[in-house]
Formats: sequence, structure tokens, C-alpha cells
Amino acid sequence: MIVKSVLNYSAALDRAFQALADPTRRAMVERLAQGPASVSDLAKPLAMSLPAVLQHLAVLESSGLVRTRKSGRVRTCRVDPDALSLAERWINDRRNEWERRLDRLGDYLLTLRQGASDGQDG
Amino acid sequence: MIVKSVLNYSAALDRAFQALADPTRRAMVERLAQGPASVSDLAKPLAMSLPAVLQHLAVLESSGLVRTRKSGRVRTCRVDPDALSLAERWINDRRNEWERRLDRLGDYLLTLRQGASDGQDG
Repeated sequence: MIVKSVLNYSAALDRAFQALADPTRRAMVERLAQGPASVSDLAKPLAMSLPAVLQHLAVLESSGLVRTRKSGRVRTCRVDPDALSLAERWINDRRNEWERRLDRLGDYLLTLRQGASDGQDG
Repeated sequence: MIVKSVLNYSAALDRAFQALADPTRRAMVERLAQGPASVSDLAKPLAMSLPAVLQHLAVLESSGLVRTRKSGRVRTCRVDPDALSLAERWINDRRNEWERRLDRLGDYLLTLRQGASDGQDG
């Protein structure tokens, strides 16, 4: 059960980072962070064919970063903030670990220095 | 000048997200977030050949997420927190935009409701 959920989490990170590793897909997420948009609105500023846009949209949708819903003839796209958080948190956790390590190193160096100056005083 | 720096920034994000889109490379960054390590220490917990590890390391190095330095026969690897920040900030900016948008929408709905209740009072 736990192994499966760890693997799911890892696969979700693979897909999220893979989806963000492309400038067109990042431009689409940037547009959608400002609010939902139809596929044709999303395609308008992009210098590529509609099939190419749909392919990028499929990658974003399978990563969970973007959700789409069809109503009549219009498909509306929106970002999923939870999927964005997942990727953000992974990076943030690493940065925090690194900073905590630096803090511990700083404390240790301070202890060494105080030890040295106590030695001088005594 | 500005166009070039925007393109550099975009290429740096491509490489950072691409590097993070692989579970082995994320495991290597997780290990290095706890402190610098030699290549052989980095390879130890990974179930793959040294050449495969070196290939992953090359991807991490070209993304800027990891820096390595050779001293004698030992190559030491460490994370670069700035490169991690770049990728983290991009995602964080999108989430913030999305949340600001929700706040504005909330304010607007509140105005509408107050307008409606003022109408009832009058």
C-alpha cells in the first residue's frame, strides 16, 4: 500500500516536471494562472498549429497540472493548484534541508570558535 | 540583450525541470540536499552501473542543479541552491497569480452580495 503510494507520488512528480520542461507548456500554464481559458484562447498567442497545441495540452492534462472540461462545443482549461504545489513542495523540501544543514554547520563552527576563545580566556 | 536573457532564463528552466523529471536524478538531489558527497557515495544506494550514474550526474550538472569539483582522484558533488530556487520561484509565481485571482474574484462576489443586500434594505 505504502510502496504503491510512494511510486504514484514519484510518477506524479515525473509527469509534472516533464510537463514543465517545455517553454510552450510553461506559457500555457502562465496564461491559465491568470484565469481559465478556452482551447482557442490558449492557442491564439502561440505560433503553432492547433493539433500541436492540443498535444501540449494533453501532456499538461495527463500531468494533472491542467484540468479541462467540455461544455457544448467549448473546452475550458484551468490550472490545478494542488498539482503545482506537489512539484513546488518537492523543490522547497530540498532547499530547506540544504539550509538546515548550513545552519547546523554554522552552529557547529560557532561552538568550535567559542571553545577556542574559552581556551584562550582560561 | 533582454530577449537573450529571457531566452537564457527559459532554457535554464527547461534544463532544471527536465533534470528533475527522473526519479534517479531526484534521489541524487535528495541525497545531496543533506550534504556534499563523492560520486561513489552517490552511486552506492542506486541500483545501476557507474556509467549510468555518471550520465544522470552529467544531466544534473548541465542543468546547474548540481556542481562537482575534482580534488585528486575524488569528485565531490553538491547542490546549487540558486538553481533550485529558479525552478521553485517559477512555480510559486504561478500559484501566487492563481491565488490573487481567486482573492479578486472573492472580493467581487462580496461586492455583488453587499450590493444585493443594500438593495433589499433600501
